[in-house]
Amino acid sequence: MYLMGIDGGGSTVRVMIITPDLTVRAEYIGPAVNPSAIGRDEAARRIQDAMRENIRQGGLAPEQIAGVGVGVAGASNRYAWAVDWLRTTVHAVTPNANIVPSSDFEIALVGAHGQRLGILLLAGTGSLAYGVNGAGDSALVGGWGYLLGDEGSGYWLGMRALQVAARMADGRGPDTALYAAVMTALKLDDPLELIPWLYQQPARVQDVARLAPLVLDSATQGDKVARSLVDTAAMELTLAVRTIRHRLDLHGHQPMFAGSLLSTANPLSEQVCQLLDMPSLPTPRYTPVMGGALLARAAQ
Amino acid sequence: MYLMGIDGGGSTVRVMIITPDLTVRAEYIGPAVNPSAIGRDEAARRIQDAMRENIRQGGLAPEQIAGVGVGVAGASNRYAWAVDWLRTTVHAVTPNANIVPSSDFEIALVGAHGQRLGILLLAGTGSLAYGVNGAGDSALVGGWGYLLGDEGSGYWLGMRALQVAARMADGRGPDTALYAAVMTALKLDDPLELIPWLYQQPARVQDVARLAPLVLDSATQGDKVARSLVDTAAMELTLAVRTIRHRLDLHGHQPMFAGSLLSTANPLSEQVCQLLDMPSLPTPRYTPVMGGALLARAAQ
Repeated sequence: MYLMGIDGGGSTVRVMIITPDLTVRAEYIGPAVNPSAIGRDEAARRIQDAMRENIRQGGLAPEQIAGVGVGVAGASNRYAWAVDWLRTTVHAVTPNANIVPSSDFEIALVGAHGQRLGILLLAGTGSLAYGVNGAGDSALVGGWGYLLGDEGSGYWLGMRALQVAARMADGRGPDTALYAAVMTALKLDDPLELIPWLYQQPARVQDVARLAPLVLDSATQGDKVARSLVDTAAMELTLAVRTIRHRLDLHGHQPMFAGSLLSTANPLSEQVCQLLDMPSLPTPRYTPVMGGALLARAAQ
Repeated sequence: MYLMGIDGGGSTVRVMIITPDLTVRAEYIGPAVNPSAIGRDEAARRIQDAMRENIRQGGLAPEQIAGVGVGVAGASNRYAWAVDWLRTTVHAVTPNANIVPSSDFEIALVGAHGQRLGILLLAGTGSLAYGVNGAGDSALVGGWGYLLGDEGSGYWLGMRALQVAARMADGRGPDTALYAAVMTALKLDDPLELIPWLYQQPARVQDVARLAPLVLDSATQGDKVARSLVDTAAMELTLAVRTIRHRLDLHGHQPMFAGSLLSTANPLSEQVCQLLDMPSLPTPRYTPVMGGALLARAAQ
C-alpha cells in the first residue's frame, strides 16, 4: 500500500509517496499552486502534474495510491468550495485513493507533531496559530491575510519597518536605524520614493515580508524602535498560542514552530520561547508533506 | 483679469473662475482626475475638458485667463514629474496664464485660511497635516497612503474596525459592538467572508474608509474598543499638527480642518479640538478650489 502527501505552500508544491512504515518511495517539488494567485484551474493542473510526476518517479501506477492527504495555501478546508476542489483535483489522478482534504497549516501541524494533535505557531510571510485537541476539535487564530491580520508575521514586521521609517522622515516618530536599513535595502534615496515602490500592483506582500530580517538585525544591534517592534510581534504570537490553548483546552501544550521567522534562532523566535516558558526552539518531527501522508495513513 | 482655480480631489475635479475681487464668474464640476487611478493622459484630458467647459460657461476666451492655481490628488508638487505635468496640462488650454502648480492639500490650506499661511489638518479617506509659515516654508506630515500611513484617517479607522472584528472572532480580542456593526454593514454572515471581500482587486480603499462612521457611532454609544480606536486616531492627528508646528516654528497656530471626518461634529473631531485646546470646530474661510484661484491671484 502506498500513501501520498501533497503540500501546496506559498512558493512550491511538494508531493511525497510513502509506505505505511513511513519509508519514502519518492518526493517531487513543483511550482507554487496557490489558487488565489494563479486561479483554480491552473492550480489544479499543477497539482495533478506534480502528482503524476511523483508517481512516475516512484515507478508506480496511479491506482496503487490508497490514500492522499492534501493541504494547499489559499484553499483551506475551512471553505466548502476548497474541500470539493481538493477532492476533485486529487481524484482525477488517483481514482482509488481515500482523499483527506486538509490545509497547509494542518498538514504542517501533523508533520511537526507526528500526529493530528497539538499546536502549531507559524510566522513566515503571514502568521497563524492552529490547534487540534484530543477530541479532534480544531481551532485557528490569525491567518486573516496581510491587510486584516498577520500580526507578528514577516509582512507585519516589514510593514512596521516602513511605517517607522516614514514617521522618522516626517519628524513624527523617533530616530531609528531602520530608516537607513530600509532605504539601503530598497536602494532608495528619498523616503518619498517609498510611495511609488509600495503601491505597485500586484501588492508587494513578499517584498515587504523580505524586510523583516532588517528588524531582527536592528533589534539585535540595540535599536530601540526595532526592539519594540519585535516585542509587540512576540506578544501577538504568544497571544495566538494562548488563545488556542484556551479555546481547545490544551493547557500546558507547547507549540511546534513553522515559517521562516520561527524556524531559526533570532530575537523574535527566542522571545516567543521565553514568553511561553520553552527552554529552546522546538524541533519538528516531520515535514508538512509527510504530515499530509500521515493524515492519509490515519484515514486508512 | 480672470483667475482660475483647479481642485482635483479624490472623487471630482472642480474648476472656478474669479475676478481679482473674488467675484465668482463660473464654477464647474467634472469627474475625478487622480492620475495614479486613471493614468496621466486620461487625467490630463479630463482636467482640460473641465477647464474648457468652465471657460465656456463663463463666456470667456481661454486667452483671458491670466493665472491658474492647480492642485490634484496623487500629483503633489513634491514630485518633479507632477510640476511639469500640471504645467503642461494647464498651459495647453490657457496659453497666457501664469500657472502655479500646487497640491490638493496646499490649495485646501490656502482656501481654508484665505492665504498661504497656517496649518491644515485633513482626515478623510486618508490623513495628513500640512503647514506653511511666514517665510513661505512648507512641511507635510503623513499623506503616505493607506498601507504606509494615513493614521487617524477613514481608512485607518475602517481597517481597525475590521481588525478588532477579526480578533473578536478568533477569541483573541475583547468583545466589541463593532463586530456586529461591520458584519451588518457588509451584509456578511460569517467573519471568514471578510477575507474574499477585502482582498478583491482593485484594493477596497474607499469601501474600508466607509466603515469609519461605524467606529464613531459605536464610540458614541459607549463601546470601549471603538472609543479606544477614536482615542488613538485623535492622538495621531494631534501629533501630526504638533509636528508641523515644531518643524515650521508655528507655535500657537491652530489648524483648519478638512476631510469628511473633521468637517462635522463627531467624537473624533471633538476630541482633536479638545487635545489642541480649540473651543470649537474651525470654520474654513473658502473652498479648496477658491484656494487655487487665490494662489493664482497672489502670483500675479
